[in-house]
Amino acid sequence: MKLNIALLAGDGIGPEVIDQAVKVSDAVAAKFGHEISWTPALTGAAAIDAVGEPYPDETHEACVAADAVLFGAIGHPRFDNDPSAKVRPEQGLLKMRQKLGLFANVRPTFTFPSLIEKSPLKKERIEGTDLVFLRELTGGIYFGKRGREDNDNTAYDTCTYTRAEVERLAKKGFEMAMQRSKKLCCVDKANVLETSRLWRETVQKLEKEYPEVEVSYEFVDAVAMRLVQWPSAYDVLITENLFGDILTDEASVISGSMGLMPSASLGEKTSLFEPIHGSYPQAAGKDIANPLATVLSAAMMFETAFGLKNEAEAIREVVNRSLAEGVVTEDLSDGGKSYKTSEVGDWLAKNI
Amino acid sequence: MKLNIALLAGDGIGPEVIDQAVKVSDAVAAKFGHEISWTPALTGAAAIDAVGEPYPDETHEACVAADAVLFGAIGHPRFDNDPSAKVRPEQGLLKMRQKLGLFANVRPTFTFPSLIEKSPLKKERIEGTDLVFLRELTGGIYFGKRGREDNDNTAYDTCTYTRAEVERLAKKGFEMAMQRSKKLCCVDKANVLETSRLWRETVQKLEKEYPEVEVSYEFVDAVAMRLVQWPSAYDVLITENLFGDILTDEASVISGSMGLMPSASLGEKTSLFEPIHGSYPQAAGKDIANPLATVLSAAMMFETAFGLKNEAEAIREVVNRSLAEGVVTEDLSDGGKSYKTSEVGDWLAKNI
Ligand SMILES: CC(C)[C@H](C(=O)O)[C@@H](O)C(=O)O
Ligand SMILES: CC(C)[C@H](C(=O)O)[C@@H](O)C(=O)O
Repeated sequence: MKLNIALLAGDGIGPEVIDQAVKVSDAVAAKFGHEISWTPALTGAAAIDAVGEPYPDETHEACVAADAVLFGAIGHPRFDNDPSAKVRPEQGLLKMRQKLGLFANVRPTFTFPSLIEKSPLKKERIEGTDLVFLRELTGGIYFGKRGREDNDNTAYDTCTYTRAEVERLAKKGFEMAMQRSKKLCCVDKANVLETSRLWRETVQKLEKEYPEVEVSYEFVDAVAMRLVQWPSAYDVLITENLFGDILTDEASVISGSMGLMPSASLGEKTSLFEPIHGSYPQAAGKDIANPLATVLSAAMMFETAFGLKNEAEAIREVVNRSLAEGVVTEDLSDGGKSYKTSEVGDWLAKNI
Repeated sequence: MKLNIALLAGDGIGPEVIDQAVKVSDAVAAKFGHEISWTPALTGAAAIDAVGEPYPDETHEACVAADAVLFGAIGHPRFDNDPSAKVRPEQGLLKMRQKLGLFANVRPTFTFPSLIEKSPLKKERIEGTDLVFLRELTGGIYFGKRGREDNDNTAYDTCTYTRAEVERLAKKGFEMAMQRSKKLCCVDKANVLETSRLWRETVQKLEKEYPEVEVSYEFVDAVAMRLVQWPSAYDVLITENLFGDILTDEASVISGSMGLMPSASLGEKTSLFEPIHGSYPQAAGKDIANPLATVLSAAMMFETAFGLKNEAEAIREVVNRSLAEGVVTEDLSDGGKSYKTSEVGDWLAKNI
């Protein structure tokens, strides 16, 4: 099979971790007889520096032409301390999501037995946790009308959802639930928000099409609590853009394996895969960043974008082996022997 | 001193826990030579049943006439399963906040050494945590324009803030920081939302008036993570209504002492004190609910509404003693001897 993949390394540690995912992907492709053609393209601060735009047209064209996009991380401290900066890396992210129609962000949280001690939660709380958030990614308050009024003294943002937008996301949730434990939780704030009431209504109607799925409805504040108390109670959760932003980040740290969590953003035509961690500028260029989340994102890509399940399994398997044998970067080495980012990538590629 | 207090017991376990707070308040008043006049009034499902309205006019008048309001909890499962119910207990809550102008919700999270093992977090993560959220309570997306368009197929909610609203809340945050460790964190989503940019701008301007306070700005998703990872890093946090709803609930469970956490909602003219837990309908009428959060809310009331610091200290001191001596309800008894709600209240009142 020929796989055309756009490669958006981005900023900070992005290029370093992407390099390892490329090595591992090439190794798995060689093993299974596929050929990957990588098309690198600029994004984030790197793109702002080069062409003044965080998501340039050429990058968009490369993504549209590809079968899938592998993404590193974006963001640079230079922009963080200046909230009024006109062009910001994050805008590139939002523009990319919208222009590529990446409406469903898939964010799993699971535990690695060997890393469970790294969780801020007690072992008995986190054990067995294996949940996945489906966050709506191209609607809601992120993309509604916003502005100032009254001489700049009043600001507003608008949260908007259409029934079709909710349905599209919710259907993915039901389908995912059917493939897992047939439990779906719809997270909203229907006791206050009209958009949440539309969500709830729409999901309630869909229940009839998926009679096997057991659906629960919980308020976002309650979920923020229960994720810390009993994360293993959840399986598939669906929610709108802003709630998803907050809750998926909360969920990402409870497992203690944030540096290992992959994600996918799915659209009708294309899909994008990226580690959930950020660009970690302090570590950039030092060859110390943990590449496993990006490598596991490549595994998700093989499985989700290309339907190549065995290839994905091969990657996951070698990652598990590297953890078991202690071939890990310093964040996971507990003061013992640690390996460089590139060494971990080499080891994974060799042992696949 | 004569203290006029409106007493809104509400639903579920509300009346039971409020009873204990009344006993303890009366005891502390007797000891320090004050006289309390309690004015009970209806709210929540109880008020809907009685007069068809969750926050009736008579209740509002009682609150306005009082020096402070002591509140139990509201909510009833009968309404939860019917998102389209026309009259709901929560509406009473929102109406009350708005009509009484309770713009600043003060929600501390702290640990009790004797209860630290109850936290879902590991001891070394939670130890030393003593933070307080100031949540804006009468603005934002809770009170903006909302509705449907396009034949009911599009829903919208509007988040609005004025500079004056932000300033009022932020000033309380700076003042609180001055009385604590002079550290203030402004939580927003300024990389996306215009209202957040107004928040950030306004807080940045106020920094000049409080040069001693060290201010940090963090995104809501990052705070949702760091609250689980290193809660003790925070001291005073200020934020808008919806973010505050989510984050204060998240924060409330990390200490393991949610059943003990009090809160205050401050307005220009009046203020309200309530436990942060809900109406816990399963336990209603069983005399088993933990009354300590409500008792500690009464302590906050003595201190904040009446400036009676010693009285507040006396209440806190006797609560600590009850914990140390194991005079606790079954949720805290670890399978050992436990006391009824009313017995704990009696013990506290007697030992003050
Ligand atoms: C950078 C920011 C705009 C973005 C978001 O809020 O969506 C990020 O937090 C994320 O979750 O991908
Ligand atoms: C009941 C609900 C409307 C309310 C809110 O969201 O403000 C509650 O969650 C709270 O935090 O007091």
